[in-house]
Amino acid sequence: MVGNKQVVLNNYVQGWPKEGDFRLQCTETEIESIPNGSEAVLLKNLYLACDPYMRHRMCDNHISQPGTIFKSSFTPGSVLVGYGVSRVIQSTHPDFKEGDHVWGLTGWEEYTMIPNPEKLFKITYTGVPGIAAHVGFFNLCSPKEGETVYVSTASGGVGQLVGQFAKMMGCYVVGSTSTKEKVDLAKDKFGFSDAFNYKEEHDLNAALTRYFPEGIDIYFDNVGGRMLDEVLLHMKAHGRVAACGMISQYNLEEPEGIRNLFSMIPRRVEIKGYIETDFHHIYPQYHELAIKYLKEGSLDYVEDVAEGLENAASAYVGIFHGRNVGKQIIRVASE
Amino acid sequence: MVGNKQVVLNNYVQGWPKEGDFRLQCTETEIESIPNGSEAVLLKNLYLACDPYMRHRMCDNHISQPGTIFKSSFTPGSVLVGYGVSRVIQSTHPDFKEGDHVWGLTGWEEYTMIPNPEKLFKITYTGVPGIAAHVGFFNLCSPKEGETVYVSTASGGVGQLVGQFAKMMGCYVVGSTSTKEKVDLAKDKFGFSDAFNYKEEHDLNAALTRYFPEGIDIYFDNVGGRMLDEVLLHMKAHGRVAACGMISQYNLEEPEGIRNLFSMIPRRVEIKGYIETDFHHIYPQYHELAIKYLKEGSLDYVEDVAEGLENAASAYVGIFHGRNVGKQIIRVASE
Repeated sequence: MVGNKQVVLNNYVQGWPKEGDFRLQCTETEIESIPNGSEAVLLKNLYLACDPYMRHRMCDNHISQPGTIFKSSFTPGSVLVGYGVSRVIQSTHPDFKEGDHVWGLTGWEEYTMIPNPEKLFKITYTGVPGIAAHVGFFNLCSPKEGETVYVSTASGGVGQLVGQFAKMMGCYVVGSTSTKEKVDLAKDKFGFSDAFNYKEEHDLNAALTRYFPEGIDIYFDNVGGRMLDEVLLHMKAHGRVAACGMISQYNLEEPEGIRNLFSMIPRRVEIKGYIETDFHHIYPQYHELAIKYLKEGSLDYVEDVAEGLENAASAYVGIFHGRNVGKQIIRVASE
Repeated sequence: MVGNKQVVLNNYVQGWPKEGDFRLQCTETEIESIPNGSEAVLLKNLYLACDPYMRHRMCDNHISQPGTIFKSSFTPGSVLVGYGVSRVIQSTHPDFKEGDHVWGLTGWEEYTMIPNPEKLFKITYTGVPGIAAHVGFFNLCSPKEGETVYVSTASGGVGQLVGQFAKMMGCYVVGSTSTKEKVDLAKDKFGFSDAFNYKEEHDLNAALTRYFPEGIDIYFDNVGGRMLDEVLLHMKAHGRVAACGMISQYNLEEPEGIRNLFSMIPRRVEIKGYIETDFHHIYPQYHELAIKYLKEGSLDYVEDVAEGLENAASAYVGIFHGRNVGKQIIRVASE
């Protein structure tokens, strides 16, 4: 087997990611075989997920204080690594055999060697947004029937699932997103109680008052910044905020200042940051549940599929401009 | 009985409280007796607590969104209300008799009629800081032996107790405060592992790195603002922040912007706002514990006592400038 197309970081990203920050390269060398005596798998990558968190690994000077999980950055010239679905084409590990479909961290390339495949799961579902939505909503926010839930990026990979989980729980759930198409998707496909285009709301305070006259019990925050600041003034007593992502801040030189934190005290609000990989132990049971829901049609999942590694860079850049409708993924190969 | 000295709000407070925002008045009318048929108590007030949260009740335009507990403000001309220790001088309520010492909300005046005394406790200890410290530290932060704890306003009414509770738990606890005298108090009297004067630290980041080279597990936040923002970058993974107060922000026209919230996500940090009155049910058991500790000498409590209602305004104003050493209280009468 000769040749391996790869998406490589061209330079550390500053500000908004540009297509030129990445390049496609094709190695002409033989794909290496699994070394004798090691327990590894060789993967053919099928689908790759464009996850916003990867942005943090693309910069040189990102936060690297104790306690972060983003210590090791991509370096210029290195192949990007992210979550994907792959097929095992060679295996010396007892848990995997040729033909297995697996999900886990892999390279943004056609073929990837995984020396320690213990963290791969034998499934066919790109699951990071699912875990993030499930853990963030159920484990962190402890929703109760009848509570009011607000979700930013309502049609995104995570948001669309939170909306559906909230409906399953009997909550009133409103989402915000950036286009009419995505507002309709949230309402018609994902069953949000209501949804609005935040770009058309010049007075966010008025919009939140309109949709939540009694206030918000749970805010599932995917955007941070100004939206989070405004939402804090609409939280009900004992409200909970799941800090899943703050995508509005990722490309700013200096983050926006949040001025309404004091309101957390009289309202007894909690904000909880979390990382879905801390919940690695529940992946199998979540995947089982998700696949059951998807099969029986009680859960929908909309993906925006870019074709081929050639389109990987533009697809990745696009998520920061809201160009995707649903979870942005890249199809590297179909089988 | 004739005459009742009272501390009255002169006008809504804007910015930093000034002595002129309050006035002392003496009513020359007979103190009213308990109306026939009602179950009430008449109190002689002994000690009043200068609590920073009262500042929120002194302004006209403070946050009054759903979910706050500060809905009813003091109005100009009304007597201030706060926590204090009083002696019952008349009672028609079956739970209280003449001579009982009680703790609870009372007026900033010599005598106060309490029509519904169910929320008074029969004890002799000004307990809001104690409850705030106990609940915030133990219930919200779930401290474990060996963890690192940082406390701002280390010698204040709440901070001095958090420091001592942290030592009881076997934690490494560092406090910050605003004078050398209070730094010494924190170390020598309250047993903080270390303490520093934040006013002498021009580089807060360097100071926090010096005291917490491995990061902070628990931040007990009494000040908010810039200190909170800086501390966020020093939290360890799974760190917890108890948002007890944000006194640095109470008198600002616009709160400072917090820019480091994103770090909560990779570090999985929680910030929890709370109000000690939500834990009303544990007051009796806390008071029992506190009195036991105080009697056996395992807990110290330093108070800064202003003499008489004549000095109430200056004592109250002083807490926002750090003029108090220990919890600021006002002695209205000794017995």
